[in-house]
Amino acid sequence: MTTANKVTKTIVVVGGVAGGASAATRARRCDESAHIVLFEKDEHISFANCGLPYYIGGEIKDRAKLLITTPEQVAQRFGIEVHTQREVMSIDRVRKVVTVLNRETGETSEQAYDKLILAPGASPIVPPGPRAANVFTLRNLHDTDMLKSALDALAAREGDEPRRAVVVGAGFIGLEMVEQLHHKGFEVQLVEKAGQVLPPLDAEMARLVEEELGRRGVRLYLGDGVLGLTMKDGLATEIRLESGLSLAADLFILGMGVRPNTQLAEAAGLTLGPSRGVKVDEHMRTSDPDVYAVGDVVEVLHGVAHTPLRVPLAGIANRAGRLAGGHCVGENPERAPAALGTAIVRVFGVIAACTGLSEAQAARMGKPCATVYVEGGSHASYYPGAQSLLLKVLFHPETGALLGAQAVGGEGVDKRIDVVATALHFGGTVRDLAQIDLAYAPPFGSAKDPLHMAAFAACNQLDGLVRFVPPTTNLDGAQIVDVRDPHELVHAALSGAVNIPLDHLRERLAELDPSRPTVVVCRSGKRGYLGARILSQRGFEDVAVLTGGMVARRLVTAG
Amino acid sequence: MTTANKVTKTIVVVGGVAGGASAATRARRCDESAHIVLFEKDEHISFANCGLPYYIGGEIKDRAKLLITTPEQVAQRFGIEVHTQREVMSIDRVRKVVTVLNRETGETSEQAYDKLILAPGASPIVPPGPRAANVFTLRNLHDTDMLKSALDALAAREGDEPRRAVVVGAGFIGLEMVEQLHHKGFEVQLVEKAGQVLPPLDAEMARLVEEELGRRGVRLYLGDGVLGLTMKDGLATEIRLESGLSLAADLFILGMGVRPNTQLAEAAGLTLGPSRGVKVDEHMRTSDPDVYAVGDVVEVLHGVAHTPLRVPLAGIANRAGRLAGGHCVGENPERAPAALGTAIVRVFGVIAACTGLSEAQAARMGKPCATVYVEGGSHASYYPGAQSLLLKVLFHPETGALLGAQAVGGEGVDKRIDVVATALHFGGTVRDLAQIDLAYAPPFGSAKDPLHMAAFAACNQLDGLVRFVPPTTNLDGAQIVDVRDPHELVHAALSGAVNIPLDHLRERLAELDPSRPTVVVCRSGKRGYLGARILSQRGFEDVAVLTGGMVARRLVTAG
Repeated sequence: MTTANKVTKTIVVVGGVAGGASAATRARRCDESAHIVLFEKDEHISFANCGLPYYIGGEIKDRAKLLITTPEQVAQRFGIEVHTQREVMSIDRVRKVVTVLNRETGETSEQAYDKLILAPGASPIVPPGPRAANVFTLRNLHDTDMLKSALDALAAREGDEPRRAVVVGAGFIGLEMVEQLHHKGFEVQLVEKAGQVLPPLDAEMARLVEEELGRRGVRLYLGDGVLGLTMKDGLATEIRLESGLSLAADLFILGMGVRPNTQLAEAAGLTLGPSRGVKVDEHMRTSDPDVYAVGDVVEVLHGVAHTPLRVPLAGIANRAGRLAGGHCVGENPERAPAALGTAIVRVFGVIAACTGLSEAQAARMGKPCATVYVEGGSHASYYPGAQSLLLKVLFHPETGALLGAQAVGGEGVDKRIDVVATALHFGGTVRDLAQIDLAYAPPFGSAKDPLHMAAFAACNQLDGLVRFVPPTTNLDGAQIVDVRDPHELVHAALSGAVNIPLDHLRERLAELDPSRPTVVVCRSGKRGYLGARILSQRGFEDVAVLTGGMVARRLVTAG
Repeated sequence: MTTANKVTKTIVVVGGVAGGASAATRARRCDESAHIVLFEKDEHISFANCGLPYYIGGEIKDRAKLLITTPEQVAQRFGIEVHTQREVMSIDRVRKVVTVLNRETGETSEQAYDKLILAPGASPIVPPGPRAANVFTLRNLHDTDMLKSALDALAAREGDEPRRAVVVGAGFIGLEMVEQLHHKGFEVQLVEKAGQVLPPLDAEMARLVEEELGRRGVRLYLGDGVLGLTMKDGLATEIRLESGLSLAADLFILGMGVRPNTQLAEAAGLTLGPSRGVKVDEHMRTSDPDVYAVGDVVEVLHGVAHTPLRVPLAGIANRAGRLAGGHCVGENPERAPAALGTAIVRVFGVIAACTGLSEAQAARMGKPCATVYVEGGSHASYYPGAQSLLLKVLFHPETGALLGAQAVGGEGVDKRIDVVATALHFGGTVRDLAQIDLAYAPPFGSAKDPLHMAAFAACNQLDGLVRFVPPTTNLDGAQIVDVRDPHELVHAALSGAVNIPLDHLRERLAELDPSRPTVVVCRSGKRGYLGARILSQRGFEDVAVLTGGMVARRLVTAG
């Protein structure tokens, strides 16, 4: 694989941040002789975009930390021509030339390419209407600087009047901004069009995040869309919602998602996919084999849905850039991995993460999906400091194939989700998950990790030992057997339930009717399973267990 | 799978702690009608054996926390006959009867079985000679109580004289005890027969743990075996080592590993395997299909070595117990997973973990093995609080199949090892590892995680882009190019190296001889790779990179 006798190729990369810098530097590592040109329309080719909220909130104190690399460093180390403030306006795929606007001088010029890599990223979605000086999106360092100075100005404002902010959009960035604004002393109101925060998670799991927001005094407006802003003297004073509410604030932040910047690709006649991202093959090539696309502008194959989806996440963009950069100089046999949509966010004291499909996504796709919930500890319960987490594992009800997982709680949420993501990569099943030999010592896990416990439960269902019903199940007409101890019922009791503590179930069977459909409940589902095993082997014909017990039941019925 | 019409079976379980209680309770969950009898020769059938050091050291304050479940609770909840202080003395496999000694009365009796599950665990290895009252092993609660009261008595001793302890054996339990003794104010001396602590890890990775022990003032005696104890008035005063040294102490703790309790199985004519553990099939059945064995007494198939090995770890014992318990009543189609030897230990401020094979193990087995080292952060470097870790990934040099991984450092070591363990479960390769869509947000990881970086490096080697040589490589005669910046050389410079900072390498090529075998070095290997790419594409014929750079080099040459 020596490249010594290669003909010099010109590689042109459009956009640095969303995978472009990764592509350009990888092309250089693979081909020392290539002529590599990177055009970036802004001033930075690489910055820590996921770190912006933490800089604004002051957790990251030094702005320089956000600059991962400078144009000068990339030019020097990699021998790449880096041009900032240059916007690629059009692609002539016949002549293999791009037209570039110099945003400083207004002049245009042409640059020929042998291979072209498009990494133009995505742009924040904003509501229609005029922009105000106190309405912000958060996509780049310019946005960041504007927002931070507005916050600092408000913080310096005299008087005791509370500083108020509205955040629109309760996705990852929206929630990170809510936390940081709260740290800065703002009263925060959060508006989300969906009926829940964190739409990639199922509603009941997201509820745990909503409760944490509530504990911190954040006001939630869920299931409410934005109509527009009320302006006064060039500043927004209120945001008007579809419900008729108007929320007044000093500052408005829009985190309503992003739209892929496909204009350039579309104008050049490149094919878009069903999700309206640029369609690419397993080497990140567009419909023109000399043109690659990476990052938030493309759609990627979802490893569980088996359909192309847009997954605008940093890790995927970075790794795709690396692949395209290697492939375009002929040095990379690797194929683009399927994306799993693995994501994580910290919201005050709660961590929420997911991988694969949610139950709601599976339902929309018509995919059969069974679920189990486990409440577990970050490590062995007998060792101090264990933090609890609620884990939901989704699997195919017949094959046991893993479909996804969600976890919300304390420490160790990231580890559990990464293990499931790894298993999903390999197309694993819940039987695999039950077997994985994970690292265990008291400060780090349990001999039977929450992942194992969830997998055991799923395997029991596959093997016909138990039938779990979801926490949303309508229990009207069922014989409900609550096997908790009486003192536990103080917190939450189901109306109509018969309470027989698990340890006395065998001796009190006569109090129950074996011919009635029966649902066994407990706190988290574990004792319910034990109770159901007793009943189903002692003549009860139709026995189910409420998975996740009252812990999950409370979440689906709350709010 | 209804069990309503089953003939009642008698299941006899021998030993509770090492997987036996798991087996007995699983048998009950699967078969409500079975007659289940558990014999335990000690008083506890289930306790947190991995928590004992932390209770002794005071991190776990309440002894009751160690008792996961009591005989009474198991009897009540699961309808299991639990007999403690009963030792099974022999098995008559023809009559299907065990003989049981009541250790309280000295009487023996017989118990018939349909299925027998052996979980007798393992016993600590101790040196020959008389036992002294101040020499301890740590295997059960009795050991724990003895040791704790001895420690408390020493702590209460009057005077300023230092309290001294010797720990023999630098495996997981030995190291945990060293930490706890140090917390208790002891001067600790640690003796290990191998030339390193933590023999499951490779020596250079274990060196990071040795350095931490040194920083805490623990005196290490590596590569030194125990000859015996010097006794006075029934107490040990000194331990005599093969080197001729004698170490005096108030207290001696032996953590020299365990020997499987195979006596009962051997006497009954059950087959032992090559590792001298009881041989079992994928359902944990011994050579007699009516006799199962689980836990530290058996050998398990190692998922990477593909040979049977003894892996005396709690998680494996627990999960094997569950399998055997289900299978013996005919309700469990699951198969025993291969073990990966995944393990983790915290030693003061350092966490060390491993999965799969070490390089030394692979060498002993004659397995081809390539390695890469990556120094990485627990999360994005721009977000505060990232802790560093050194990750070593082992893979097959042609196929890229993962063989194992080791990590030593701060937070997040457990997560990385668990991800590799999961990939090993599926027989994954470094190409898989490069692709896994892990959860990323600044407090939790990096867009290119250290796992990805290690996998990228390994893939680059597989693709012929680079040749890594191990940190142990003899560099005599090679042209050594150190691409670090001059200020970095203050800490560690290789004699004979030419220093050309990476960013000036292209312009200073004339200072080097392209015909000489060349090794590129830097701090951790990343810039070395970039430098090697430049050289190998500009006429240098034989270029290698020192993997792990000076970070790893220092570890293999230190000590």
